[in-house]
Amino acid sequence: VNYLLFEDPDIKKILEHYRIIWALGHAGSLMSWDMETYMPEEGVQERALASREISLLSQKLLLDEKFVELVEKASVKENLNEYERGVVRVLERRIRIYKKLPPELVGELAKTRVEAQNVWKNARAKNDFSMFKPYLEKAFELARKVAEYLEYDDEPYDALIDLYEEDMRTKMVVQMFDSIIPELKKALDKVLNEENSLYPRTHPLEERKYVREEIEKLNRRILDTLGFPWSRGRLDVSPHPFTDDLGIKDVRITTRYEGFDFKRTVYATIHEFGHALYELQVDERFMATPLAGGVSLGIHESQSRFWENIIGRTMAFVKILSKLIEEASPSLGKIGIEELYSYVNTVKPSLIRVEADELTYNFHILLRFNLERMLLNKEINVDELPEYWNNMMDEYLGIKPKTFSEGVLQDIHWSGIMIGYFPTYSLGNVIAAQIRHYLQKDLGELSEVIMEEKLKLIKEWLKEKIHKYGSLYKPQELLEKSFGEPMNPEYFKEYINEKFVAKKIV
Amino acid sequence: VNYLLFEDPDIKKILEHYRIIWALGHAGSLMSWDMETYMPEEGVQERALASREISLLSQKLLLDEKFVELVEKASVKENLNEYERGVVRVLERRIRIYKKLPPELVGELAKTRVEAQNVWKNARAKNDFSMFKPYLEKAFELARKVAEYLEYDDEPYDALIDLYEEDMRTKMVVQMFDSIIPELKKALDKVLNEENSLYPRTHPLEERKYVREEIEKLNRRILDTLGFPWSRGRLDVSPHPFTDDLGIKDVRITTRYEGFDFKRTVYATIHEFGHALYELQVDERFMATPLAGGVSLGIHESQSRFWENIIGRTMAFVKILSKLIEEASPSLGKIGIEELYSYVNTVKPSLIRVEADELTYNFHILLRFNLERMLLNKEINVDELPEYWNNMMDEYLGIKPKTFSEGVLQDIHWSGIMIGYFPTYSLGNVIAAQIRHYLQKDLGELSEVIMEEKLKLIKEWLKEKIHKYGSLYKPQELLEKSFGEPMNPEYFKEYINEKFVAKKIV
Repeated sequence: VNYLLFEDPDIKKILEHYRIIWALGHAGSLMSWDMETYMPEEGVQERALASREISLLSQKLLLDEKFVELVEKASVKENLNEYERGVVRVLERRIRIYKKLPPELVGELAKTRVEAQNVWKNARAKNDFSMFKPYLEKAFELARKVAEYLEYDDEPYDALIDLYEEDMRTKMVVQMFDSIIPELKKALDKVLNEENSLYPRTHPLEERKYVREEIEKLNRRILDTLGFPWSRGRLDVSPHPFTDDLGIKDVRITTRYEGFDFKRTVYATIHEFGHALYELQVDERFMATPLAGGVSLGIHESQSRFWENIIGRTMAFVKILSKLIEEASPSLGKIGIEELYSYVNTVKPSLIRVEADELTYNFHILLRFNLERMLLNKEINVDELPEYWNNMMDEYLGIKPKTFSEGVLQDIHWSGIMIGYFPTYSLGNVIAAQIRHYLQKDLGELSEVIMEEKLKLIKEWLKEKIHKYGSLYKPQELLEKSFGEPMNPEYFKEYINEKFVAKKIV
Repeated sequence: VNYLLFEDPDIKKILEHYRIIWALGHAGSLMSWDMETYMPEEGVQERALASREISLLSQKLLLDEKFVELVEKASVKENLNEYERGVVRVLERRIRIYKKLPPELVGELAKTRVEAQNVWKNARAKNDFSMFKPYLEKAFELARKVAEYLEYDDEPYDALIDLYEEDMRTKMVVQMFDSIIPELKKALDKVLNEENSLYPRTHPLEERKYVREEIEKLNRRILDTLGFPWSRGRLDVSPHPFTDDLGIKDVRITTRYEGFDFKRTVYATIHEFGHALYELQVDERFMATPLAGGVSLGIHESQSRFWENIIGRTMAFVKILSKLIEEASPSLGKIGIEELYSYVNTVKPSLIRVEADELTYNFHILLRFNLERMLLNKEINVDELPEYWNNMMDEYLGIKPKTFSEGVLQDIHWSGIMIGYFPTYSLGNVIAAQIRHYLQKDLGELSEVIMEEKLKLIKEWLKEKIHKYGSLYKPQELLEKSFGEPMNPEYFKEYINEKFVAKKIV
């Protein structure tokens, strides 16, 4: 390994030691990718055990006395270059977090994660909340413990959200929702009350069954068009689509096939492409260092949302998509551009988060954000969760789930003890609109740039503004550096109003 | 983890520490399975780095001072039960081996392995020996170093073969070949000179193209019939079929599809099933301990050969196979039992080891065994290898490769620096025939036992005699314990003569 960017001898020693921690992370990523895609069912017992051991070992190596001393020593050095300072920041943060968590807790988290995810899969399939309930209780109990050990400013949630979004706080999330929710509500009411809207509630294509092989081909052709580098990535199938970065040169995405309503799998694929592109465009010189990998979930989600919504749901992209559908799926037949645009832009209060449209999506997040806080603060307990969920759905979107699977059991996150994670989806939506604003400033109207031969300009711009930096800067610092301001929800409100109220953009 | 079989407090401590070494092995297995099946091409760089780091770490943990002390302390205890003694034997052996190898060498082996295998794949595809040559030189240079560090009785090969087959020595392999090769030569000459032989040189079905989806289905149906537990295993595709045991409950096999001559993929699948069954039937109480996993490559190969040849190439099995072909592959059509029997039992000197029949296979091994010894002893160098290979093929089987891909580049082993490994294939053939003898003593004539509903008797017998013991006993001890004698090539000669000369068994 040649560390071209790193010259300080202590930093070099740090990176040498870090390599094994990185290697364990690489193995861990593969193990979790495999668990979701190809692992035989009964493999879960040994996988859980191995994951737990490796997670414990990784923590031990991160907290190795000599290593921690080296990092502490480096942190007060004044002549480090910015890459070296980045390494120290990322490691100090991780050490601080791990130091506060007892190894037993970390091991228990890893083990519970594997077991709970397996139970969750079955529980969701069987619509059996009682089956999953003990694991959900355990998950929140463990999350509460994590928060207590990590300490927090105002409430346990502060400690948890910071794990996914450096320096983010609960009250900042509350502010963000306070800013965007009323605008979304207004736009949603308007669209729902229009007759013959460009954004209809339902669309005949939603019922249309598809030939799986054709839509698999379509997804591959979409990725071809977006320039997904197949020599550095894969597309597979899993119950819940995700992106897994095993390295800068091995980034894997998944999608799922329900057999009807093809926009679901198509936009899941485009979404994950956005995540993957971020990881694939990190500066290669960061390989196997703490700087490899996207900096936070919010920034990550801004990338997936950018491709899924800001690019993917425009008329310009729909034109490209229409051509690909014609090529890949004869049995879907020719679909008119306007028809396709309306189909991928239906607006309707619905029960499933991952199928929600741009106007209703953030209500789903607000619901989870509120429920997580209430559970953590013991204002409600897990028994009451389905009832609260259902009532809140009714309050926000005027609908109620009839089954657990379309309610509390729908998301993978809680089974993975990823509590505090959900708000980063809304941060992503907000930041994606902000990126849109600055991208248009540099490259001109998006409708003119979204053409097959110009997509690489967008990718190049994203690389220069966001991707190449990996974890070098904190999320808000990155935004300030590239755009001159931190996260600002005004651009999202502007985007929503221009698209759904004023209809100035399509 | 509950260690039901282990009570000694020191052994318990040993097993606790060993768990992380096991977990790293689990991760390593998955990483190498993935590299051969699903990893995107450019992922190799980071995978190589991660493999190297994990392999080094594993060695370090095995040689951890306190751990080694514990093992040494346990090794002189007199009141250990046989499971505890087994743990100590396996660990002492591994520690002894690793202690002798410097960590730098172990790291270099792991890294070279990953790189060389990637180059080998391309070199084989392009028929380019010069591309692979530097890696082959490196492989033998590293193997020679390994032998020197490990020390040996008569020649470097002794040290290497012992890595794959505990206590096996070069001269024992020579003796084995000296015993079986003349008999094979005689039987081969006889069969090749027969007219209208039951064992023809070629068969029209060898040219027959197949519909891949149908033969994929056939392989799955064969595995169904053999009782492969899909909840604990997988069947995938790789350039060179292999079995990978991630654990007792996660054992994965691969096969390959050339598009014609379906017996190749079918018997590769049955072969790998034999390997997998061994791992799947190890005592579950050995999970995550040094006793999990088959004891040696020779015993392992005896299991794969047993299913492939001793079971798979009988008339009784051919009847089962014929039914499955009819079900799974309409486009192959109905094939008569006799026709199918002759097709899967053709005898013909050929260039490719993995396609060789029961009479010619061991000549391929003898060739590799001789060449490996000559290279190690520096009697020849890598430049001369293709020439020696070709001449030796001519001498043993009267044929010469026209390309590198059908000659020196055909096997994966050297690119994996698995030198000393080949003889274990012949040991496996010999031991498989020995197992056949004792199985018939217990269960009666094989022709009466090879029926779909009775296959489980065979599996149960193998479990009791071989599989359940995992690595508890040394290979030769295991044979003595179960059959009252160590490896004995007489049964193989008897089998060959009865099948191919006297034709008393079909």
